[in-house]
Amino acid sequence: MSAACALRQRFQQTGKPTMKRRNFLKQVAGATALSAMSATATGAAREERGRAAATPNLLWIWCDNLAYGDLGCYGNKRINTPVIDGLAESGARFTQYYIAHTVCSPSRAALLTGRQPFRTGIVDVLRPDSPTGIPSDEITLGDALRANGYATAAIGKWHLGDRTEYLPAQHGFDFYFGLPYSMDMLPTLLYRNNDIIEELPGDAVQNITERFVDEAISFMETNRDRPFFIYFNHTLPHPPINLPPERRSPGQTVYDDAIEHIDDQTGRLLAALDRMELAEETLVVFTSDNGPMGKYGDTAGLRGRIRDSYEGGIRVPLIARWPGKIPAGSVVDTPAISYDIFPTFVKLAGGKPPADRIYDGQDLWPVLSGKGDIKRDKPFFWVYLDKVTAMRKGNWKLHVSHRDSPLEIPELYDVKSDPYEARPLNERHPDIVKEMLEAIRNYEAGIPKVWSLQYPVRDPNKRNSGVRRE
Amino acid sequence: MSAACALRQRFQQTGKPTMKRRNFLKQVAGATALSAMSATATGAAREERGRAAATPNLLWIWCDNLAYGDLGCYGNKRINTPVIDGLAESGARFTQYYIAHTVCSPSRAALLTGRQPFRTGIVDVLRPDSPTGIPSDEITLGDALRANGYATAAIGKWHLGDRTEYLPAQHGFDFYFGLPYSMDMLPTLLYRNNDIIEELPGDAVQNITERFVDEAISFMETNRDRPFFIYFNHTLPHPPINLPPERRSPGQTVYDDAIEHIDDQTGRLLAALDRMELAEETLVVFTSDNGPMGKYGDTAGLRGRIRDSYEGGIRVPLIARWPGKIPAGSVVDTPAISYDIFPTFVKLAGGKPPADRIYDGQDLWPVLSGKGDIKRDKPFFWVYLDKVTAMRKGNWKLHVSHRDSPLEIPELYDVKSDPYEARPLNERHPDIVKEMLEAIRNYEAGIPKVWSLQYPVRDPNKRNSGVRRE
Repeated sequence: MSAACALRQRFQQTGKPTMKRRNFLKQVAGATALSAMSATATGAAREERGRAAATPNLLWIWCDNLAYGDLGCYGNKRINTPVIDGLAESGARFTQYYIAHTVCSPSRAALLTGRQPFRTGIVDVLRPDSPTGIPSDEITLGDALRANGYATAAIGKWHLGDRTEYLPAQHGFDFYFGLPYSMDMLPTLLYRNNDIIEELPGDAVQNITERFVDEAISFMETNRDRPFFIYFNHTLPHPPINLPPERRSPGQTVYDDAIEHIDDQTGRLLAALDRMELAEETLVVFTSDNGPMGKYGDTAGLRGRIRDSYEGGIRVPLIARWPGKIPAGSVVDTPAISYDIFPTFVKLAGGKPPADRIYDGQDLWPVLSGKGDIKRDKPFFWVYLDKVTAMRKGNWKLHVSHRDSPLEIPELYDVKSDPYEARPLNERHPDIVKEMLEAIRNYEAGIPKVWSLQYPVRDPNKRNSGVRRE
Repeated sequence: MSAACALRQRFQQTGKPTMKRRNFLKQVAGATALSAMSATATGAAREERGRAAATPNLLWIWCDNLAYGDLGCYGNKRINTPVIDGLAESGARFTQYYIAHTVCSPSRAALLTGRQPFRTGIVDVLRPDSPTGIPSDEITLGDALRANGYATAAIGKWHLGDRTEYLPAQHGFDFYFGLPYSMDMLPTLLYRNNDIIEELPGDAVQNITERFVDEAISFMETNRDRPFFIYFNHTLPHPPINLPPERRSPGQTVYDDAIEHIDDQTGRLLAALDRMELAEETLVVFTSDNGPMGKYGDTAGLRGRIRDSYEGGIRVPLIARWPGKIPAGSVVDTPAISYDIFPTFVKLAGGKPPADRIYDGQDLWPVLSGKGDIKRDKPFFWVYLDKVTAMRKGNWKLHVSHRDSPLEIPELYDVKSDPYEARPLNERHPDIVKEMLEAIRNYEAGIPKVWSLQYPVRDPNKRNSGVRRE
């Protein structure tokens, strides 16, 4: 091989696979590593398996910026969430579940790929007309579950790129109905699969949640005879919050109303599962993508909010129900993190993650099923841009950077005994600090450097995104 | 047409044309608006036209960050630039030639498209692995001149995107030999057409300028029987500066040595034209892409440097020689700007700019040929990101923003009588300030909003770019 050819190949391998190679990778992954059954055989297979199917339907319900303390079952005394509380009563509730990144796009990339956001290149929030998105050669939960015979749908907020190549239809989802961005990022374009079907008045859409739920139920109905994966993404309670007038309660904040609306609409999803007699073969997960922004979200006293690696920014509710498989009313105190979901779901679907790339998490089934604990292979690291902000190993958590400005003195906490991160223990445990600092230094060596790019957007109203309207 | 379909079409038209539409646009532009002769007929046509061909070869020699006062013919007493001074003696020298943007990538985009950088989306410096570059639906000088029968080459620094779709071969250039970035942006990959042929030690390449010149001469030889356009881009005097040892002069700065090296190598290009008897049918332009960075570049007393809209950041040398067509030793005081080059070159090649898009400049031939003056249609505006920083209309120049922080009080200068921008005239001419502020407000309404994106780069050495090494 010539030097030039070798060089080219090197950059193709490490930098940017060609389209052909990407498709090839996906095919290989689909055909060998991921798939344990063929898609065509699945409909019949389900019948044979009957109710106690080993491969459950997967309904992932993701809220946008819901805080750790926003739900009744997580201690909230003000907001009524009977449906979600009921879900927890009939399943498992995690007390130390983390999201992999403190903001939306990277958090979603980590969930869908099972990999740290810096591995996928989604290291900060995308905005309308962003020139990037989730790369074609990443394997998403949509790809992985489809390869195992699942019908797959992405509904609601996407936030992983708006160019056609980045939309859900090109990332393993048979169906997409939703928005590429948040409601406050104009223009708010509603897509069905690859097509823009409406431009919504982004900050004044009262019934979008009901429409998302309608589409999810319709997808369940169409695919009730085969396993399905619904990746359901609320736009609530992220501002702007617009609710149907009958949803507003006199004297109650619109934020609290929004959580109760989410609860109602979750009820509609669960009722549809019941009506179709699918509840017992469906694993339902209800959770959030990161800590709260704005003044309302209630972290139950945890320090920090969105963009922080303190517990209030990264610890969120996770409730999982699968009747007969997950013990009712269980509480899981084992630490877990959102990039664990990929290996967990892929294994439940009868596959296994491909061997050609780094995965950061591990299968949570032992703790979900209540049959055991997990031995954690790697510490948790939170990374903002190209710097580690915090690390958790065992009960120790070390902070080295606050957002993108390094801390002058690292902060060590025992987050089991002190989840509020109120009592730094650096001085008492210099050995732990030293060991964790070294681990952070080693980890950072593998993180690609991040630069910023200024790019123009087509936003016709020239309105900023990310602005809170309350 | 359905509402959804109309919406889709609207976004396709304003946002992102599909590949099919892009190719179609280029074909239409090439076949009708741009082209006055067919490429196949050109070789023979040149023979028939003989020496006094109406369509000259075009040799554009662009320095990287050369300052207004760095050349002998612009008043420098320290640096010896006999070749370039000779070029000025046998052609025209502009005293008020501006570049369209204060930094490299946008400046280059404006030259190649004849359009303000915000129209092409290149609004700031690109860095290795940038996810964007010059859009496929832009028509570059390469496209426009090739459509008029020119052989086209881009040599040296490109800096308009490194993904294959953004490289010169996809933008009208038959041949490319060069670097996608500056020498200080690692990895420094040398391309021939679309292929990486070498990885250079970016900050220690002594003979790259000679190699660029070799390739340019070779291209001239291959294409001596048809009109050609060589877009020649020095990487000097931008740091890091590495010169062959014999080029270093004891007691002289490496910066001054670099300018003298540029002069020598320009001599090689001109000697090749002479040897091939092409000098009289070649329009040679020698100029710079923006004001100086680092401590050495000499603005001849003009205020400001790279990134500034003060004269030192945007006024650069421009020397143009076309024996018998451009009067020898002429000095052009008429203000001109780099987006004027596109209409000037396209017209000299026998075409005209397409009518389907906004062009910002106008044909400079009346002042180049010494046969007349030009009546300027529009004021000059300099834009950083999505904000106007300065405007020039007639002899008035109004500054409203310093880089990206607005000025508290706008600054008005008469840059004909006060090119040093030392004597603000706001208080004496409130009417002019008011009128120009209103024009700026109107102009800004048409500039797309700019957002920032954080993206990871593959730079294996994790070294920063844009760092000066002197």
